[in-house]
Parts: sequence; structure tokens; C-alpha cells
Amino acid sequence: MKNPLLSFILFLAFGLMVQAQTIQSPNGNLSLTFEIVEGKAIYSLDYKDKAVIKPSSLGFEIKNQEKLDGDFTIVASEQDQKDETWSTVWGEETEIRNHYNELLVTLQQNSTERQLKVRFRLFDDGLGFRYEFPLQEKMAHFVIKEELTQFAMAGDHTAFWIPGDYETQEYDYTESKLSEIRGLMEKAITGNLSQEPFSVTGVQTSLMLKTDDGLYINLHEAALIDYATMHLNLDDENFTFQSWLNPDAIGDKGYLQAPSTSPWRTIIVSDDARDILASRITYNLNEPSKIEDTSWIKPMKYIGVWWEMITGKSSWAYTDELPAVQLGKTDYSEVKPNGIHGANTENVKRYIDFAAEHGFRGVLVEGWNIGWEDWFGNSKDYVFDFVTPYPDFDLEGIRDYAKSKGVEMVMHHETSSSVRNYERHMDKAYQFMKDHGYNSVKSGYVGDILPRGENHYSQWIVNHYQYAVEKAAEYKIMVNAHEAVRPTGVARTWPNLIANESARGTEFQAFGGNKPNHVTVLPFTRLIGGPMDYTPGVFEMDISKINPDNNSWVNSTLTNQLALYVTMYSPLQMAADLPENYERFLDAFQFIKDVPVDWEKSLYLEAEPGYYLTVARKEKGSNNWFVGSVNGVAARTSEINFDFLDPDKTYIATIYADGKNAHYRNNPQDYTIRKVLVNPKSKLKQNKASAGGYAISIMEASKEETKGIKKL
Amino acid sequence: MKNPLLSFILFLAFGLMVQAQTIQSPNGNLSLTFEIVEGKAIYSLDYKDKAVIKPSSLGFEIKNQEKLDGDFTIVASEQDQKDETWSTVWGEETEIRNHYNELLVTLQQNSTERQLKVRFRLFDDGLGFRYEFPLQEKMAHFVIKEELTQFAMAGDHTAFWIPGDYETQEYDYTESKLSEIRGLMEKAITGNLSQEPFSVTGVQTSLMLKTDDGLYINLHEAALIDYATMHLNLDDENFTFQSWLNPDAIGDKGYLQAPSTSPWRTIIVSDDARDILASRITYNLNEPSKIEDTSWIKPMKYIGVWWEMITGKSSWAYTDELPAVQLGKTDYSEVKPNGIHGANTENVKRYIDFAAEHGFRGVLVEGWNIGWEDWFGNSKDYVFDFVTPYPDFDLEGIRDYAKSKGVEMVMHHETSSSVRNYERHMDKAYQFMKDHGYNSVKSGYVGDILPRGENHYSQWIVNHYQYAVEKAAEYKIMVNAHEAVRPTGVARTWPNLIANESARGTEFQAFGGNKPNHVTVLPFTRLIGGPMDYTPGVFEMDISKINPDNNSWVNSTLTNQLALYVTMYSPLQMAADLPENYERFLDAFQFIKDVPVDWEKSLYLEAEPGYYLTVARKEKGSNNWFVGSVNGVAARTSEINFDFLDPDKTYIATIYADGKNAHYRNNPQDYTIRKVLVNPKSKLKQNKASAGGYAISIMEASKEETKGIKKL
Repeated sequence: MKNPLLSFILFLAFGLMVQAQTIQSPNGNLSLTFEIVEGKAIYSLDYKDKAVIKPSSLGFEIKNQEKLDGDFTIVASEQDQKDETWSTVWGEETEIRNHYNELLVTLQQNSTERQLKVRFRLFDDGLGFRYEFPLQEKMAHFVIKEELTQFAMAGDHTAFWIPGDYETQEYDYTESKLSEIRGLMEKAITGNLSQEPFSVTGVQTSLMLKTDDGLYINLHEAALIDYATMHLNLDDENFTFQSWLNPDAIGDKGYLQAPSTSPWRTIIVSDDARDILASRITYNLNEPSKIEDTSWIKPMKYIGVWWEMITGKSSWAYTDELPAVQLGKTDYSEVKPNGIHGANTENVKRYIDFAAEHGFRGVLVEGWNIGWEDWFGNSKDYVFDFVTPYPDFDLEGIRDYAKSKGVEMVMHHETSSSVRNYERHMDKAYQFMKDHGYNSVKSGYVGDILPRGENHYSQWIVNHYQYAVEKAAEYKIMVNAHEAVRPTGVARTWPNLIANESARGTEFQAFGGNKPNHVTVLPFTRLIGGPMDYTPGVFEMDISKINPDNNSWVNSTLTNQLALYVTMYSPLQMAADLPENYERFLDAFQFIKDVPVDWEKSLYLEAEPGYYLTVARKEKGSNNWFVGSVNGVAARTSEINFDFLDPDKTYIATIYADGKNAHYRNNPQDYTIRKVLVNPKSKLKQNKASAGGYAISIMEASKEETKGIKKL
Repeated sequence: MKNPLLSFILFLAFGLMVQAQTIQSPNGNLSLTFEIVEGKAIYSLDYKDKAVIKPSSLGFEIKNQEKLDGDFTIVASEQDQKDETWSTVWGEETEIRNHYNELLVTLQQNSTERQLKVRFRLFDDGLGFRYEFPLQEKMAHFVIKEELTQFAMAGDHTAFWIPGDYETQEYDYTESKLSEIRGLMEKAITGNLSQEPFSVTGVQTSLMLKTDDGLYINLHEAALIDYATMHLNLDDENFTFQSWLNPDAIGDKGYLQAPSTSPWRTIIVSDDARDILASRITYNLNEPSKIEDTSWIKPMKYIGVWWEMITGKSSWAYTDELPAVQLGKTDYSEVKPNGIHGANTENVKRYIDFAAEHGFRGVLVEGWNIGWEDWFGNSKDYVFDFVTPYPDFDLEGIRDYAKSKGVEMVMHHETSSSVRNYERHMDKAYQFMKDHGYNSVKSGYVGDILPRGENHYSQWIVNHYQYAVEKAAEYKIMVNAHEAVRPTGVARTWPNLIANESARGTEFQAFGGNKPNHVTVLPFTRLIGGPMDYTPGVFEMDISKINPDNNSWVNSTLTNQLALYVTMYSPLQMAADLPENYERFLDAFQFIKDVPVDWEKSLYLEAEPGYYLTVARKEKGSNNWFVGSVNGVAARTSEINFDFLDPDKTYIATIYADGKNAHYRNNPQDYTIRKVLVNPKSKLKQNKASAGGYAISIMEASKEETKGIKKL
């Protein structure tokens, strides 16, 4: 059937002639070269003539087959480009431009005749590329032993990294040179028992890098669907990262069927750190929404019966008498309540009242359902049923009370990582939610995955997280998944995935604390893939005042906490602290009440990963703007102007800032609030304390309202 | 809180005093002794003063704890007895007597204060015992590394064994001395790629043994629910078996929560092999039915579009053009059919016609649903959806046609061992069945379990098989699970589990053949736990006559195949061969048409494992009896009498027997059929060929009908 002469001619025509290809980004700043060098598939990336990625090889190790990483010829090559603008369901802006030049190369391994395609999309702010596996006899179904994608760095860059780990991303970030990672790995592990790095130079993505000559580089992935999570392992002699896919129980890294693709590997790059935050590469490389009617997906602020358990003041469990619960058999009416169960009807109603009074749409309640007495660390299969409340949680009464107050209850599904049990109960649990007026769920995956041997980021469990989101969409339920794999922009395709945790959140402030500069790193790392339910808004930094047995300290000033509602973008924002703590600082609390959760546009005014970050956002559907600025350890003066304001409008700015003596450790609650008039010509010089920050609400006002208020 | 003096008194009262205990079976033949010897918990079992189990120790290895296998004291001891009779939903008899004496000992490990109970039930035909884990602080949740139950044999017995394996029971049995197992292990592996013994002296249960002094001993387990399957590993110097639980992906063997129990470990024993077959210990040790209304559970004979695929005459797949199917995306209307797809409407209707003509209630069709092109060996997660027919399978038309003919379609759910996918689709698949008149499902678990690392008999997957059966009961669906764990009497509790495969079935006769004596072993091994869908009734032994490319040979005579409908008890019996083969032998086929699938009582007339077996059963709801007799390799004359018949009734017996020159290999279709009158005084001497057998239908008749028929 095959004509050898024709093959040879095609080889001449497409093979030899196109062994090197270069494309430019639309604005010409970025240049991608792809070439075959001694049979290897090599790509490299330059930014304004500086090397971002030095020549790096591509390929795979396929189980029970020859390596697919060399002996390549280019048998076809296509170029394309796109410039489109799409509308978000929610986000940092209402419209996103998707503008790139594309190169698609088809490689053939000469000895095996296997083909592999690589599709590059070069944007003004970075590169995305993915592998595509065409259907072919030898690779209809195949098992990936490893993906062999290199990211060769041009020097010993500074990195903001967390250890590579199959189970958790809940690490503090370490700032170091690449050459220092090996030596710092042990120290990078913080007090979380499930932290276990896979290699002494292994790190997770999204990884933020800074070069000595001022380039900012971010490595991550987009559209992680039914594929293993990509970590990176560093060859620290050559400063070259290689993809390290998350293995399954037997060490395999992916089961693929052609035709299919890998997720996109992304390299965001700029000489201005602010561009990293403004990049929308990750969403652009995901598919458009598969949910047609998105009217039920609504950003939301919420409070919850949660911080009191996190701090240890109250408990998820109803009783201390049950070392082992058998759902359906254990009779809770026969046990003695422990007296500190947070999710009791009276307490929940208190939160509902508070939410109604202060304009929060949602109230989350954790520990409402039976099973919390032995939920953790027991490899317990049937650990929760997701539908049976504790005897002191009057589900119907609370439902009706919330409704009467115009408040929406937020469901909580802790799975204890017993994912089969969750899938078995999922339809009933989601239906139960709809039957009782719950439209969103916070799900959790604490502890080791069942079945044992699987882990949090392998293909099998990535498939589960996706299944839970897609099934939730069938029920018109929004999902906020904690401990699930870190996001990769999939929320564009499934916008009911309104948030994830997938990083070290505020809860760790009650478990020993986060690094003071943590929130200046997260927007450059974790948030690249999508919103985080960081649960900001803690006003009482001394946790021992909530629970005398807990000496943890929240490493942040109070106004830093306010700023997070702007700097840590999420369509879902919690006010995490106890109502009684907010009532002590109602003037500052006003900012949390005012700040919206959906935006028309966002501007990144100042940014340096690990050090500072200032963001301005315009509220969707109004002319109000909000500014947030957070600081690392070093106190700093922020200088911004307001040229983004409409010159034809009048604005009152309320500035919530660190007081003169503020310091995250000694004096976090020292803050000032002042009202001033601002216009496009206004400039602000604002001091920020160590781990401090400021927040500004800029409200359009009538001339009347501005009377007596001074200009900035 | 604890009173040391009281403890000491209790220790004196219950501890020292009761360090050895003996109970007898109700008829006194069996004697069980339990004692503490140097801190070890030791049991032993005698039958008529012969040692069945020599002193054998009990206990556990618990993960991250001290071994729980010594330093024991008996802290309590209770005796009890029961004599009750319960009614079966289906079975070898309508009523079963449950008669035993019981000993319950509570052990305490002195150094750790952990407690462990052992409950012994001693029947006239054997012993069952299980571990019970009371709820206690140190063992509320725990992980079993190994169960340390010994079964010390009194000598180098003869065993009928299959290699211990985590993935399959589909082995031929080997008959050997215990001391020979090690040397024969390699040879015991037959041509099935997934066979992989875990140890050179590891075997599976149910294990049939015979002692040199004429005792028959069977080792198995009862009520395997949410626990790892028990295999046995032999210390072949001491002829002592030890339990070897089936591990999970990380080598752990069970995740337990107190209070809970192990399955029952069973030792059936007699000096008459027939008593092993008559024993109902396995069912008696299971819980009564949890299904209240069992009226929808009905034994059934069926035929199926199956043998033609097994032999290779036709295919499950619709096309040969799809190396990789994507359900929901692959368009079957665009591919070329392979022309040999078995499950096409015309062919299925032909089977329906045949079933209607010959009185079969069910028609199974395999390969009806899309996905068979790449279903096997690809670790494919979304491999079937269980609801989408191939384009040439007119589901509605077939449904209506079957209904019009009074025939019931039998569903087929091959899971390809992608069990998560099956659970995700299970509700819809079962509902789809009910919507289309399917009341029973044959499920299959071919290939490696997904997720990888798990296997066919670990606790996690045992839990899945059970889940599938219990969920089916919600839909009033009967389950016949193939490749699932071998049964342990759970069908008493869930009588909708009407059959399992879980052994080497008739299909292997088309894959190279089964040993000629295979069916003389199975009733003593595989069938101890419950019915097998052995799919007998093959009339054409030369498979090359069906498929010229298949040279397999069915190692059986034709009348041996008939006898299996009696000797291989199952409420679900297939007539496996092609309709055209039955049409060639309609006189012999008459027996298959006549034989019922539900029984009032069963008598075991002759039995020797590996050699011969003759069973008589009385039809439920009639006065008819049916006899089946099968033979091993050596030809043999069976001698039976008919004293089980009612002297006041008249019977015509139709005897289907091997012809004079019959031989399974040379002349399997040489058979004779004769009609005679029989009464309680009748005696039969009947020759059986090598791998032969005979079948008798004994129908109550009027005097009129007996005219001209001679007495036996």
C-alpha cells in the first residue's frame, strides 16, 4: 500500500526543508524556535533577545516501547494565528483577548514510524505548547512512564518554589537561587505530616522565577484534564527543569488513548512582574465554557462556622465518645455531646443573622453531618454520607431561617479522600443540596486517598475532581474544592468551579502561621491557574484569644487582610474571622462589606513577587474601584496614581492603611481609615508595615456627598 | 477508674480457670478444643478421634502495632447452641437446618491489654470460626498486615488445589500430596496470561483435601464482606496452612473498624465425601436474607449469543477499523462493520425464536453495546457506558420481539475491570435495564483492575462486588458476576446474587480445554461457596467445526454435559452451545429442556473428588426427580438405587447415557437414551465413559403413560 518513492519525496519536501522553524509573538517581543538537532526535538524561547528557555528537548518515555524522544524528522509543519476576544462568566475582567501565533509540527520517529505532534501558541506574554497524539497503530492506547519535556533555564535564577509532592501543595514558599534548592529542601518542609518531597530538587508548578537581568518567568500548565499533574525536577548543574508527572500506585504516569493531547505547558514571561499577573494565557489555552446557561453561577462573599473549628475553639465532631462511628448504625441520640460542636442550630442562626445584617450572601457550615468523630487518618471507606445532619443541626429549620433572612447556605462535603465513597453518594448528595436550597459546595480531600497507593495528583484522581465538577454542573451547583489538584484554568471551561484551595491557605495562620510574605507570592504562583478560596479577613491575630491552647499567630496586619480581597482574586471570598471579632472593628469591616467579588477590569499597579503587590479593580456593573496592596516583611512606601479613574466622575476614596506603629507581629491592629476625594490626577504615597498593606474603596459619589471631604 | 483488685479476681475467675475448653458437635462426632499454650491461642479439631486440625494458632499482625498473636489470657468464655431451620429463596433444598454448638472466647493480650474474641460454631459436618474485634481504644480503626490463622494438617494429605493468585481463579485443579505442591506449582499454571501465583506453596480456597485414612476435609471461608479474600500458604515441612490475605496496592491486607468481625473460616469434614457436598455450613454462617420481598428472584435457564464469540466464530466487536474508541465521539455509522458481529438483530431474534420454541426463559446477548473494539488490555477508564447499543442491535425491536415470544432478555455488563467507571454508570445502567425489561445481568471483570495496583480479591474490590449486588437489589435485578471473587455463601443474605463464575468455566473448553475430571472437582471446591454459572450443555466437542481456526476440544462426552445440569447446582443454567448444534441432537437436548433449576431436596448418591459424582434432586413443586452423574478420566460403573422415590407413585425414567464406544476424546457423541419404569426398589448399574456421565429424568406418570415401558 505504501509507496516508498512518494515517502522519500515527502521526506525531502517536508522533512529536510523544515528542520528549523521560528515564529514571533504578535508584538514581536517573543521568539520561539523549534528545530531537530541530531534527531532530538528542540525548542527555545527568547524575550527581547534574552534567552528565556535555552534549547530544550521534548518527548516521552512510553511503557513497553522504545523511548519517543529522538530520531525525529519533521514531516509536516503548519502555522496559524488567532485574535479573538471572549467574555468571562466571572473573572478579573469581563473580556479577555486571545491573541497568538501558532506553529504545529508533526514529528516522526524514523526507526519506529511513530508520530507525535507539538502545537506551540506564542502570545505577547508567553508561550503555551502541548503534545498531540494522533491515532496510529502503535500508539492507539499507551502508558506514559515519563514526559520528557525540558525547560532549560539561562542561568541560576531566583525561584519562589514549594517542594514537589504527590499529596499536598500546602507549603510556604521558599525564595532561593536554583542552585540552593537542594540544600534548602529539608527546611522547606513545614509542620504538615503529609508533606513528602519526591526528589531533592523537585518543585511544583506554578513556579515563579526571576532572572538576574530582570526577567520574570512563570512555568505552569493549562487544561489539566485526565492527565497526571506536572511537577518539575531540576538538574541543578545545568539549571534545566524536566517534567516529572505524578505517578499512580504502580509508578505509571498516564494512560492515554489517541487521538488525545497533553495539557499545555506554559511559560509566561516579561521584564515587568505586573505582566505576569495580567497574563491570561492559562485561560486562553483552555476550552470555552461547556455550560451553556451560566446564569446560575454567581460570585459570592460568605462567612462560615469554620474559623472557630480551625482555631480549636469548637469542634466538627458532635461527641468525644465515639472512637469509631458506623454510619446508619451509630445512634447519636445515645451519646453525650461534647458541648463544643460548632454546627449547632443556635450558633448557625447567629452566623445567619450576622450574614444578613452585613450583606453576606452565603453561610458555610462545616461539621453539620454525622461522621466527624473518626473521619481522619483511619482509611475509613464509608466515612460520610453527606445527607445526615447531627442531632443538634436542624437542617430544615436552618434552611427556612436562612431563606427568611435572604441568606444562602453553603454546603460542605469533606470526603476524607475516600473518593469512591464520595462518588457513590454524589448524586444523592447533590440532589439533597438542591432540595434544601444549597447552590454551592465546599468539598475537601483531607488525608490519604482511598484506595491506598493512589495519591492526590495522579491521573486517576485528577479525573475524579473533574468528574465532581462536571456532575455538579448537571445539578447547577458551584464547586469550591479544597486539597484537590491546583487549578490550570479549567474554570473557563467549567465556570462552576468557582474556587480551589490547593495551596497553603489562611487556615495555616492558626496552625503555626504562614510566612509574612506568603500573599505576595501566591498571585504569582497558585493564582496563575485560577481563583483560590484563601479565606482572608482575619482581624484577631492572636489565636490564643480565641482558644487559649492555641498559640498560633496570624502573620499579617489587619489592613493587609483587607487588601487580600483585592489582591487575591476570587469570585468566592470568605470573611473568615468570628463575627465577634468583626464587631470589634466595624469601621475596618466596612471594607469587606463594600468590596465586590466580580470585576469589569483589573490593573496591576505595583508588583514584585515575595515583596509587594498593588492591584486596582473596577467593579462589574458600577463605576467603583477598589485597590489592594500587600507587603512582604520589609516595610515599604507604595506610590500609585489614579489615572484609571474616569475624569468626568467624582469619587470618594476610603483608605484603610497600617497605622504608624503597625507591625504584623507586634501591633497588627494599628490601622487608620481616612476619606479623601480622588481623581485621575491624584497620587498616593502610602506606607505599609512589615507584612502590612492597605485597601481603598473608591466609590463614585455625587457632588453633594463629597462636601467636606478633602482631596488626596 | 480501674480496680486492680477486681481485675485480678476476674483474672482468677475467668482467666486461669478456663485456659482450655472443649465442645462437641451436636452428634458428638466432632470435637473442638481451644486452649492457651505459652500465651498462644490454639485450637484443634478432631473427627471421630482422628485429628482434622492439629493444634493451630490464631492471631493477627496489625500495622504499626505489636503482633496480636500471643501473650493471651482468656478473660471470658461463653457457650451457646442453636437448632433452627430456615427456608431458602432458591437452592439445593427448600429448607436448611442450622444446628451447632458455640464457644465464644474473649482473649486479652496481657502486655497491650488489647482484646480479641474468637467465636467457634461446631456443626455435625464441620467447624466455622471467626474473629471478632470489640471496640477498644487501641483498636478502633486498624490495618491488618496479615491474619495469622493456622490450619495444621495431620499428615501429607492429598489436595485438589489451584495456585494462590490475586487476579484469577480460572485454573485447572491439580491433585497432589501437600508435599508435592511446591514442585508442581509451575506446571499448575495454564495458558492464561493473568495467572501469577503469589508463593510456591500458595493455594486458593475452597481447598479440598483427603487424608490417607479416608477423611475428607474442605477449607474455605463464609460471609466474605468488606474484608480481603483469604488464600492459604503452606508450610510444607509441617503441613500447616496459614491464612494469606489478599493485599492491596501497598501490601496492606485490610482496613477494619471495630466493632467488626472477620469472615468465618470453615472446615468441613467427614469420612464420607458425599457429606462435604451436603454440608450447608457456608450458608448457615451467613446472615439471613436482607431482601424482604424475594418474589422477583427466579431461577432460570437461558441461552445466549455467546458461545459463537467464545469459539471465535463471531465477534463482540462491531468493526475491525477502530483501534481506539471514544464513547460519545466515535461515530459507528461511519465505520465498516466486520460482518461477524454476533449481537446483530437478526441473529438475536434467531436465538429468541429458539428460546421460545424450547422453553428457555432467558436470552443473553454479549457484545450488544458499543466499545468492544478496544475494551481489553488498554487500562481504559471510560470503556463502556452500558446503555448504548451498536447500530445493528435494535434494542427496542429486540425488547418487543422477546416480549411477544415470552422470552426475557439477559443484560450483559462487561466492566473490563474499570470498576470506577462501572460504579459511575451503575444507576443509569440498572435503570436502563428495568426500562427495557431486563431483570438479570451478567457482569464481567476481565483484565487488570483500575486503578492500577488494586487487584481482583483485595478488600477494596470485594467491597465493590458487594456494592454492585446490593444496588442491583434496589432495582430488583439479579446478578451473575463473572471474574468476581469466589462466593462464600453471601447469596443467602443477598439472594439476588444468583450465580458467579469465579473458576475455570466451560469457556476454557474453547480455549484449549479443561481437564477431563474438572467437573468432578468443582462441586467440592468452587461450589462450596455458592452456585456457578458454568455454562454447560456443549454438544459439539470439536470446536474447529464451529471455527476452523480454533482447534480446541471439549473434554467431555455429550451425556456428561447433560449430567452437569444436576451435578453443578445453580439457579441459573445456560445451554451454552449453538442452536444448530442442539438441533442435531434434539433427543438428547430434551433433557436440558426438562431439567429444572430449582429444587426441593438433593441427595448425593456417589462421590469421590476428582473421580466421580452422582446426585439426585427433586424438583421444587413437582414429584419429578433428576439424576446426574459425571466421571473423571477412568471409565466407571455407577451403581445407584432409587429408594428416594415415593412408593405410592409411578415414574418413567429416561436415561441418557454414554454409548458403548463413548470416549471424551474419540467418540463423545456416542450416547443412548432409554425409557424405563423405576420405583424405590429399582437399582441401576450404569457404565460411564472416560470423562463421561449420565443423566436421568424421572417423571411422575399415570398408569396409562407407562404402558409398554419396561421396568428397569
